[in-house]
Amino acid sequence: MKENKIIELLTLQCPENASVKLGIGDDSAVLRPSEQDQLVCADMLMEGVHFLIDAHNIEKIGHKALAVNLSDIAAMGGEALSAYICLALPRSRAESRFIERLYTGFARLAQNFNVAIAGGDTNIWEGPLVISVTVVGAVHKKGAITRSGAQPGDVIMVTGELGGSIEGHHLDFMPRLAEAKVLMDGYKLHSMIDVSDGIGKDLREICRQSGVAAVLEKERLPLRAPLRQRPEAEALHHALADGEDFELCFTLSEKEAERLEAQHDIPCYRIGRIVAGEGLHWGHGLIKGDAIHTLGYEHGKEKA
Amino acid sequence: MKENKIIELLTLQCPENASVKLGIGDDSAVLRPSEQDQLVCADMLMEGVHFLIDAHNIEKIGHKALAVNLSDIAAMGGEALSAYICLALPRSRAESRFIERLYTGFARLAQNFNVAIAGGDTNIWEGPLVISVTVVGAVHKKGAITRSGAQPGDVIMVTGELGGSIEGHHLDFMPRLAEAKVLMDGYKLHSMIDVSDGIGKDLREICRQSGVAAVLEKERLPLRAPLRQRPEAEALHHALADGEDFELCFTLSEKEAERLEAQHDIPCYRIGRIVAGEGLHWGHGLIKGDAIHTLGYEHGKEKA
Repeated sequence: MKENKIIELLTLQCPENASVKLGIGDDSAVLRPSEQDQLVCADMLMEGVHFLIDAHNIEKIGHKALAVNLSDIAAMGGEALSAYICLALPRSRAESRFIERLYTGFARLAQNFNVAIAGGDTNIWEGPLVISVTVVGAVHKKGAITRSGAQPGDVIMVTGELGGSIEGHHLDFMPRLAEAKVLMDGYKLHSMIDVSDGIGKDLREICRQSGVAAVLEKERLPLRAPLRQRPEAEALHHALADGEDFELCFTLSEKEAERLEAQHDIPCYRIGRIVAGEGLHWGHGLIKGDAIHTLGYEHGKEKA
Repeated sequence: MKENKIIELLTLQCPENASVKLGIGDDSAVLRPSEQDQLVCADMLMEGVHFLIDAHNIEKIGHKALAVNLSDIAAMGGEALSAYICLALPRSRAESRFIERLYTGFARLAQNFNVAIAGGDTNIWEGPLVISVTVVGAVHKKGAITRSGAQPGDVIMVTGELGGSIEGHHLDFMPRLAEAKVLMDGYKLHSMIDVSDGIGKDLREICRQSGVAAVLEKERLPLRAPLRQRPEAEALHHALADGEDFELCFTLSEKEAERLEAQHDIPCYRIGRIVAGEGLHWGHGLIKGDAIHTLGYEHGKEKA
């Protein structure tokens, strides 16, 4: 299949929106000016590392490659506007059916959140499938929520269950953009991150950048269903270290947390507290117990 | 080498600028609002297709991966502001010396054009090196120059020599951002593209999107040195089809072209004229001769 035919095929499926003045087809996309600060994130997924082609649904691979980026925009409390998709397609997959299914995965998710697919670069080679997606977004009018704003006394919350994502969740999760909007519209958050490597690593990153420690309550960690029957130590290890939960982990004052719990706007779980010090600890309330040594999943991936 | 060590190493080398409020280290970069329309382009380069690791200088691979994107920003007449670099690093290369050299290539070029490196994603795998770069820029205050504005009567110009890029130019070319600025500041351009696939394909794309034809004068095509001793037909074929020249190919009125030629602001070569019709033709002045069937290089790469 000729590359220009592939592009024609892709272009037909690509959603547009008002943030994009000129999308696919020129040297660069042209975006309208933004009144707010803008967000840019980029993530690369590789066959054999982040997905397997034979075992998984092809639409889901496209879905995941865009979703991990939308999750990063959500983690800043922002709104996603446009996406740019670079592909290294194995020659054996450079046929219309495969590409169409992959793009169906991108396009459905993009449409769901009104994200335009506005550019990219499609290549064919003899290597495995590599997908690199960049997403441009806008911060919420209240500004961006970073990893560095956690304060002693904050409550730590997550938007969903943790651990065992590999059994399916990592390929079909919905990025928490809608939940981020509810949180930003109604509450004052101090810090936020999306759980891509497991809270054992990601919450540790909030602590490191904020210069604080976290106390987690074992019995409060929301375990994904398959983990609930496992021995406690094993289940907790998975919840901390599996990664690819793509839930939001955020901190806010006790008062704001109580308000959020009373409103029931979105699913969220209180898992612990921020205290002075460094690193992660088991404990209760503001009282530190044993240090947690479990790190998140080291899948050879690191945000630069 | 641990991934977080790699990131620390990278971060030290990354240039910053005023367009970036928050760079490497959070879920997304945060950019200041832009008064102008913005530009976004993304390009992926793969080992064995766009570069060879063993044969080439590693800094040059980093240079090329950023330069191809800066060339896309130049082709819109814009200014580059920030870059986002995704890497799939072969495990055997995930050592500090290799990464440092690769990043030296990115950082030197970025510094040269005051482009911030503001984010990305570094992965390690068992496959070959893949580099995907996204660049965010701003259009010139006069707006973006697209592929679709060429008008019958326009003069067609290029900023440098064509063909034979594979002998070295493709790895160390300077993207024509400075030349684009001179052209935008001083002249009224109708259309522009950067020559990545060869003018046999790229100028054809201007013609297709503008609904016009091009007449090229054989004796006016500026040939890169190694081609000048070759038989005419062979040399012309290379000039049309080799690609990776990364010169700007643009069209403007006869009057503007004469003014540009008289000023000698930047190197540029008049290679032909735009006329009514479609496709590329040899000829003289506005008179079409034989149709040109040579396409550009089909290197399995297509801008989406």
